[in-house]
Amino acid sequence: MLADLDALRGIGAVETGVVRPAYSETDRLARAWLVERMEAAGLAVCVDAIGNVFGLPPGEDKCILVGSHSDTQPEGGWLDGAYGVIVGLEIARASLERGGPPVACVSFQDEEGRFSSLAGSRVWAGLMSQDEADESRDVTGLRLGQARLEREGLPASREVSPDRFSAFLEIHIEQGPILDTTGERIGVVENIVGIRTEKMSFLGEQNHAGTTPMHLRRDAFQGLNRFVSLINERLAEVAAPATVWTVGHVDLHPNANSIVPGRVDFTIQWRDADTARLDRMTEIIYAAAGEAASDLGLEWERFGCDLIAPTRSDAALVEALAAAAAQLAPGKWRRMPSGALHDSACVSNVMPMAMLFVPSRGGISHNFSEDTDRDDLALGGEVLAMAVARLGERI
Amino acid sequence: MLADLDALRGIGAVETGVVRPAYSETDRLARAWLVERMEAAGLAVCVDAIGNVFGLPPGEDKCILVGSHSDTQPEGGWLDGAYGVIVGLEIARASLERGGPPVACVSFQDEEGRFSSLAGSRVWAGLMSQDEADESRDVTGLRLGQARLEREGLPASREVSPDRFSAFLEIHIEQGPILDTTGERIGVVENIVGIRTEKMSFLGEQNHAGTTPMHLRRDAFQGLNRFVSLINERLAEVAAPATVWTVGHVDLHPNANSIVPGRVDFTIQWRDADTARLDRMTEIIYAAAGEAASDLGLEWERFGCDLIAPTRSDAALVEALAAAAAQLAPGKWRRMPSGALHDSACVSNVMPMAMLFVPSRGGISHNFSEDTDRDDLALGGEVLAMAVARLGERI
Repeated sequence: MLADLDALRGIGAVETGVVRPAYSETDRLARAWLVERMEAAGLAVCVDAIGNVFGLPPGEDKCILVGSHSDTQPEGGWLDGAYGVIVGLEIARASLERGGPPVACVSFQDEEGRFSSLAGSRVWAGLMSQDEADESRDVTGLRLGQARLEREGLPASREVSPDRFSAFLEIHIEQGPILDTTGERIGVVENIVGIRTEKMSFLGEQNHAGTTPMHLRRDAFQGLNRFVSLINERLAEVAAPATVWTVGHVDLHPNANSIVPGRVDFTIQWRDADTARLDRMTEIIYAAAGEAASDLGLEWERFGCDLIAPTRSDAALVEALAAAAAQLAPGKWRRMPSGALHDSACVSNVMPMAMLFVPSRGGISHNFSEDTDRDDLALGGEVLAMAVARLGERI
Repeated sequence: MLADLDALRGIGAVETGVVRPAYSETDRLARAWLVERMEAAGLAVCVDAIGNVFGLPPGEDKCILVGSHSDTQPEGGWLDGAYGVIVGLEIARASLERGGPPVACVSFQDEEGRFSSLAGSRVWAGLMSQDEADESRDVTGLRLGQARLEREGLPASREVSPDRFSAFLEIHIEQGPILDTTGERIGVVENIVGIRTEKMSFLGEQNHAGTTPMHLRRDAFQGLNRFVSLINERLAEVAAPATVWTVGHVDLHPNANSIVPGRVDFTIQWRDADTARLDRMTEIIYAAAGEAASDLGLEWERFGCDLIAPTRSDAALVEALAAAAAQLAPGKWRRMPSGALHDSACVSNVMPMAMLFVPSRGGISHNFSEDTDRDDLALGGEVLAMAVARLGERI
């Protein structure tokens, strides 16, 4: 089906390259290309107000929805998102051509969060209003509500009800090292981790780095250092193997060699598949922040935790994917969690969902060098097509 | 002498305010104002190529040089530098008026390092060539060599040989909390600390913060955290009361909530009056960096240590200042080190020097709210004037 990967090349086959941040010109060209391909496959195309592109089979019967997103990171690779969209299109096309069960396909908009992570699937699944999404801004300050008005090459906006679909299936590259390390070729995703992201600050006193004795300092960066040491020790005690936490963003003020930092703004993010463990981690993190601040004479603030709940894949869909994987990749597949967030997590709010992973070479993603063996890309598509065909017969 | 502080107000009495980064329009206006005041006081004015402004008494006899700098931080207060310049001008003026010993005054250029810290006194004292200074750039990329060419309102460039002077005396606000905390009014500076500033990096592997298990991470920020914990513990074991160390600048890459940092660039700065202790601290710091990197599977780099050697004040000058302080502020003065760098440190390369401090309210400096009691400002000037008069008689 995907043996020659022509379709995957096609989605990025526009003059300015394959990088497609949401609502960029290349993203619009890719969506216009998708619209053409969907129509050529005999699907009815709807592009909703936020820019999600649906290809619907003829008739009004409930059908399975297969897809992912075609927008990319600013320096993203060729597979992150586009792979799942093209597999969706190919399964929908092939099923229609062969008289199989009705299958629809989709490319969600702004999964990568140029404006707001998963904006397209969030709005579609009723987890965020269009008005709320419209207020989100990219790094230049542009509002999503402004950016989405440019629809050159796309049909007039038309909404698609989630009621039309019986299930959502998404195939994606793993974006992590597990399958690549074990040499397995297929991952059946049993759940998607919950993510909590908190922006915090330690506030001390900005001072001269030469004239302020150590014992009179209230150094905000030392507060962060104490905090990180405390959480490393305490989170390790409650962590499962897939539990992770990250301090990925740090801004020191005034960030000068000769000035004791008076303030540090930072984010701490923690992920786990289990809500109870996420709650326990939250307690540890807040307690450690309070303790670090108190030890060093600092104040601390937090600015509201961004919460994304863990999501379980639908058990019946998981078994269908597992059966297909066992048949087409015997001994070369595993059940696994997803440590990354995907559109599936949002869509699970309105219908059963499940996901498949193929390996990421070296675990690398969000990078131009992101890649996957061509055979694995083809195998992933075949496993998903087999599962969809069997599920479609049952519906 | 400085009872009404008119002269101190005068140096900043220009339309655009009192902030005077080196070579800014306000800095030039302040220097032009100084030139006028020096001439009005009967001093011969020389402004050298880099922009240091000298006021020289008539005759060719060796004389004492008194002064500081009149450039300021971008958000600096009214006393940092200007105080010492105005006291120098007043002592030179008064000594000439009263037929006392010959005294010269000076305002050095770019002490605050818009282009390069202490650039004016460094070049004048032969510690840096004019060519080297000319290549230094401000944050906008402008070269000092370009900026210094604008001399509107200043006389043609003329060099002044350090051979003309027998000693340098500088009075400055403390910029720290010691005198303010103890309630003392005068500090006699016995030495200026040495400063070592090293730019370093930890290099790990940038990765997805959801899909990369903790044990497979090579998180550069965790390397910095380990490093800071190690040095805090080990430097405390060798520290004297005035020893300080600071991580004041940190840049994380790519600095995103959901990405394991692949690189962190930072500076570590350490200060002490004793070269042997500075050397021991250097060893501890490099060893800790290597250990942190090795523990966490990182690489580390350092980009060359910026070294400023500790400086001792001249013993005879210190005793002259101490005698005047004991007479005018009995029980209200102390001998102390300077944790901040000053022009005096450079000038000590070519002549004996010593410094006086007056208190900084709340220890605050490099801030618009920097301030000192008017009585303390006047007292500092009187102590310095008394010491200069006695030293001048001896020469």
